[in-house]
Amino acid sequence: MTPAALETYLHDHIPLSRAMAVRVVSSAPGHVELSAPLGPNINVHGTAFGGSVSTLGVLAAWSALHLRLDQEAIACQLVIHRSQIDYLAPIAGDFTAIARLDEANWPAFLHMLTRRGKARLTVVAELSFAGQVAARLTGEFVTIAEPHA
Amino acid sequence: MTPAALETYLHDHIPLSRAMAVRVVSSAPGHVELSAPLGPNINVHGTAFGGSVSTLGVLAAWSALHLRLDQEAIACQLVIHRSQIDYLAPIAGDFTAIARLDEANWPAFLHMLTRRGKARLTVVAELSFAGQVAARLTGEFVTIAEPHA
Repeated sequence: MTPAALETYLHDHIPLSRAMAVRVVSSAPGHVELSAPLGPNINVHGTAFGGSVSTLGVLAAWSALHLRLDQEAIACQLVIHRSQIDYLAPIAGDFTAIARLDEANWPAFLHMLTRRGKARLTVVAELSFAGQVAARLTGEFVTIAEPHA
Repeated sequence: MTPAALETYLHDHIPLSRAMAVRVVSSAPGHVELSAPLGPNINVHGTAFGGSVSTLGVLAAWSALHLRLDQEAIACQLVIHRSQIDYLAPIAGDFTAIARLDEANWPAFLHMLTRRGKARLTVVAELSFAGQVAARLTGEFVTIAEPHA
């Protein structure tokens, strides 16, 4: 899936991503970078709203895992189970989220998913502003394999 | 601040709340209920998007604390430091977030804020759909007293 195709998919299926004016900077299985402008994501202090920052992180983490599962051609449901975010610094302009799967965990995850039909994976997304990490989101996802047709 | 005034304030200062079509159901110092329709907050599964659910929880928790600080007439900056959310059940329609401050913690929080000029408070928001709790958000906020003019 090209960055443009992923962007269209997100905008069409998750309208909040369109309201946030999310752009896909780069996308590959297991590695996605998104960006968002400050304007639609501003808060009462004139910096990025925590809900927007967290949401961009979830979108990046979800997209990285979604594209990686796509590459394995595994039909499954992918849902978020838990997430945590630490806000490290104010974001006073456009910001990005980079999520990259830890490939070291992938074989065990895949084994569990194919054997048990269900597996969990934790994905970290780093949020940056002006070249500095400004927040860190950890998402725990559950995947449930879909039965063959 | 009436529910209508809080709603206008959120829509005007946090545009994401307007994009999510957030409504203020009830508001009092330390106790706020918000709602959001499924439409603008839907995901690829046809249920509520995790980013929207988390954001409604943050908005409820922030509003409850904001109104309580307002009542004390303390000029301070209120920022979110960390949040965690557990998604307990899919949300297949309009959903609500209720945040209520734990008054037991308030005196110690206020003492710290007035003595040290900075204090932290944890606020929980419960997200519900069709009368059942569907997610629980815990937000850790930092308040920094503003020097007197």
